[in-house]
Amino acid sequence: MLARELGVAPGRAARRVRRIDEVAVGPSALGADARAALAAVCAMRDDHAVRVLHAAGKGYPDLVRLRAGDARSAPDAVVLPAGHDEVRAVLDVCARHGVAVVPFGGGTSVVGGVEPLRGPHRAVVSLDLGQLAGGIDVDERSRTATVDAGLPLPALEAALAGRGLTLGHVPQSFEYATVGGCVATRSAGQASSGYGRIDDLVLGVRLAAPAGDLDLPAMPASAAGPDLRELVVGSEGTLGVITRVTLQLAARPAVCADEGVVFGSFAEGMEAFRALAQAGALPEVARLSDEEETRVQLALAGGGPAGALAGGYLRLRGVAGGAMAILGWEGEREDVRRRRRHAAALLRRHGAVRLGPAPGRAWRRGRFRGPYLRDELLDRGVLVETLETAAPWSRLPRLYRAVGDALRGALGRAIVMCHVSHVYVTGASLYVTFLAAARPGEELAQWRAAKAAASEAIVAAGGTISHHHGVGRDHAPYLRAEVGALGLAALRAAKAELDPAGIMNPGKLLVA
Amino acid sequence: MLARELGVAPGRAARRVRRIDEVAVGPSALGADARAALAAVCAMRDDHAVRVLHAAGKGYPDLVRLRAGDARSAPDAVVLPAGHDEVRAVLDVCARHGVAVVPFGGGTSVVGGVEPLRGPHRAVVSLDLGQLAGGIDVDERSRTATVDAGLPLPALEAALAGRGLTLGHVPQSFEYATVGGCVATRSAGQASSGYGRIDDLVLGVRLAAPAGDLDLPAMPASAAGPDLRELVVGSEGTLGVITRVTLQLAARPAVCADEGVVFGSFAEGMEAFRALAQAGALPEVARLSDEEETRVQLALAGGGPAGALAGGYLRLRGVAGGAMAILGWEGEREDVRRRRRHAAALLRRHGAVRLGPAPGRAWRRGRFRGPYLRDELLDRGVLVETLETAAPWSRLPRLYRAVGDALRGALGRAIVMCHVSHVYVTGASLYVTFLAAARPGEELAQWRAAKAAASEAIVAAGGTISHHHGVGRDHAPYLRAEVGALGLAALRAAKAELDPAGIMNPGKLLVA
Repeated sequence: MLARELGVAPGRAARRVRRIDEVAVGPSALGADARAALAAVCAMRDDHAVRVLHAAGKGYPDLVRLRAGDARSAPDAVVLPAGHDEVRAVLDVCARHGVAVVPFGGGTSVVGGVEPLRGPHRAVVSLDLGQLAGGIDVDERSRTATVDAGLPLPALEAALAGRGLTLGHVPQSFEYATVGGCVATRSAGQASSGYGRIDDLVLGVRLAAPAGDLDLPAMPASAAGPDLRELVVGSEGTLGVITRVTLQLAARPAVCADEGVVFGSFAEGMEAFRALAQAGALPEVARLSDEEETRVQLALAGGGPAGALAGGYLRLRGVAGGAMAILGWEGEREDVRRRRRHAAALLRRHGAVRLGPAPGRAWRRGRFRGPYLRDELLDRGVLVETLETAAPWSRLPRLYRAVGDALRGALGRAIVMCHVSHVYVTGASLYVTFLAAARPGEELAQWRAAKAAASEAIVAAGGTISHHHGVGRDHAPYLRAEVGALGLAALRAAKAELDPAGIMNPGKLLVA
Repeated sequence: MLARELGVAPGRAARRVRRIDEVAVGPSALGADARAALAAVCAMRDDHAVRVLHAAGKGYPDLVRLRAGDARSAPDAVVLPAGHDEVRAVLDVCARHGVAVVPFGGGTSVVGGVEPLRGPHRAVVSLDLGQLAGGIDVDERSRTATVDAGLPLPALEAALAGRGLTLGHVPQSFEYATVGGCVATRSAGQASSGYGRIDDLVLGVRLAAPAGDLDLPAMPASAAGPDLRELVVGSEGTLGVITRVTLQLAARPAVCADEGVVFGSFAEGMEAFRALAQAGALPEVARLSDEEETRVQLALAGGGPAGALAGGYLRLRGVAGGAMAILGWEGEREDVRRRRRHAAALLRRHGAVRLGPAPGRAWRRGRFRGPYLRDELLDRGVLVETLETAAPWSRLPRLYRAVGDALRGALGRAIVMCHVSHVYVTGASLYVTFLAAARPGEELAQWRAAKAAASEAIVAAGGTISHHHGVGRDHAPYLRAEVGALGLAALRAAKAELDPAGIMNPGKLLVA
């Protein structure tokens, strides 16, 4: 299929390095004084392997460079503080020695958020939060957990499971993502239409900033002025290091019931999703693929029962395309039953045909597999990348067309497919995946052209530059269009107060 | 009852001025140049009546001073810009002439938020948003309305009613409150347990700051860095003037069903409310009075059916006190029926006895009457004031006791009563009303002592200094305890960027 549609040679293996010691890093720029001072305050490593492993995130350009053996972006060292006080000590040393600090949680940023840029500084260290992963303090009465920021989401969920609780936050990076990384990047999870985004779940936060500690207590709600939590959430390591977070929890669901439905078109499906949201009838997981993504999914599913069923339905309707949706219901058995009944009536009214649980189960089985499939596609010479945005319902159809047109225009022969990934009363997000034949040696230029075209289209059509991937390095040039010069200046002023020497994650978020 | 419990003389009428022309204002400090420049850019008034009407908000100290004929706090003039551009022109003139600007919406602040303080400036004007009240732009698909900030809430609801929509935001100040005032003060309404607080409903906002415009587009959600909307929400006029807001709407409810229930104790009622919130079974309105407030309410209800019913129940239980709650259900008929059934089971399990619709109807009839009753009480020589806080469930019992003890300690012979006014998964708010015999001529000192004792108790017990009244002048000394010195510094840095000359609402929010 890829050969036919994109013109890539079947089975062709793109060249890439195979072992970590084939990857080149530059010499460490960390001075002996700074190195000794850092080693004196916490665990530190600057061997080849650890530097390579902290050289990049998981965006397409990151992978292209690493596969080519290029980790010149590697940090000069990696520090591994074991607690808030060690983080503070690291920041003090770095401010004194002119060393930039890049917080590193799960390392899964797809927007260049963890790339160790030096900015105007002499050296750069990655601050790996992997040792800051203990201290799970659950307040069952208040349904909150206060945890160290480096705690990986699976470890948190394992600790909560025994108490019948869940955070319910499942980004595609779930296997690696940390609590602090989610908060720092203002993430959404696959079930956030139900459980809420991380910004809905953060009640309190502790930030170690170069200028001192910012300790915002957990409150259910407050009118005590502007909400500083919302300054820390999404700050992407540019203000300081999030060391501890208090999060709202939910009851662990007794039932997870997934199902597939198919609509006559993406437009009809969007209307159905809007109706569900505005009737308070949303499932926890709500994903709606456009006709192109539906077609590709059915091709991938091949002769499986879900594919056959959906394919049969589409032929029956005699339409060129249909739009498949996954609905994931989580909760108490009786509650799920009632909510599904309510939603079913609305879905019928919007022409949905139910495909039963098979497509839903397939989705849940494969919910974290996209990034692994991407490695396979890169091996086969395919450029593959995703991007996402959101807008109010009334702007969504135009935004959808604009992004698709921009990508097809920039890429030429390509597969550009989209799904609605998160649904709100007032609008929804669009998640776009695009594939094209990679031009060997020119992958980065090809990617930059596509990314720029899509980003400009998003801005022009009134979408947000990111719904859940964050800003990082890649989206920073577009933040000004969204929040204005004065908004950017206000953020920069707050940063200057918290990080006077500008050592925190330079080159990200606030550079435009 | 007041005579018996507080020692006020029955029927005694406190002295107060009766006509607006008996109220003294000082000479206007506005220079001729500044006055001419302001008059050139928008409507302006500096007659006696308009200055008195903008001299204060509606807190107890405001009323005490005005009733004594003292409006020396009056602004030097009142400007009435008719649109965003006129607001901008006013700010330019004021920055040039060293004139402080106090945004004035409904004028109902109970924390000194609209008091026209000059700060270091030569003069001060109230910027009345009453002329900025048109332009209701409803996006029915996206369920949003974009409106001028000076629009009063009743006018907004009237405009939405014909479309089957509502904002669902009903603070006790509803009759006077403006959209912009709600946003600026991070308000909650009586039904916010259901519809969400104003910070949940603001999707986009336009702020005219002295340094320029901050225009944050309406988005259903975004990961584009820190959320600047949350810097504007709750900024209380210290960063600029909110001129336009985009708000999320809800379907106008077909049914509003109110009911009363009574619990064996306030503690049992709180457990029941916690169970409702954590089961997703909350009504739109959820109010739970403590034993003291229940006792006073029953005394006020006298021989009415609700009073008799609840009183009979309490005697039956043989308890010294019981705790009455009001539950207000709003929505589609079938939906309300189902939700009430779900809640009823939980309420039964927590020992609630249902009192039927009468107490709920009585509450809805009187929902805006508290402030009018206060005028009557002041006439009778009673000091009466309210304050509020919030905390996670696990801290709530201690917070409740601490605030009550502090007030009783400061006031001596007093009625101190409390209700839970807003309920969340992770905690709730406490709304405290206190009454004592006013000491003529010393009312302000008496109030200051009580207010300080309560505020210090709130801070020490880990509550927020305000759940929905805001910070203003009265709570400003306690903000540092909540957000820390660095949090305050970050807010000040953002303010310095948006308002370099510091003309916006000096003496409020960020002074501590």
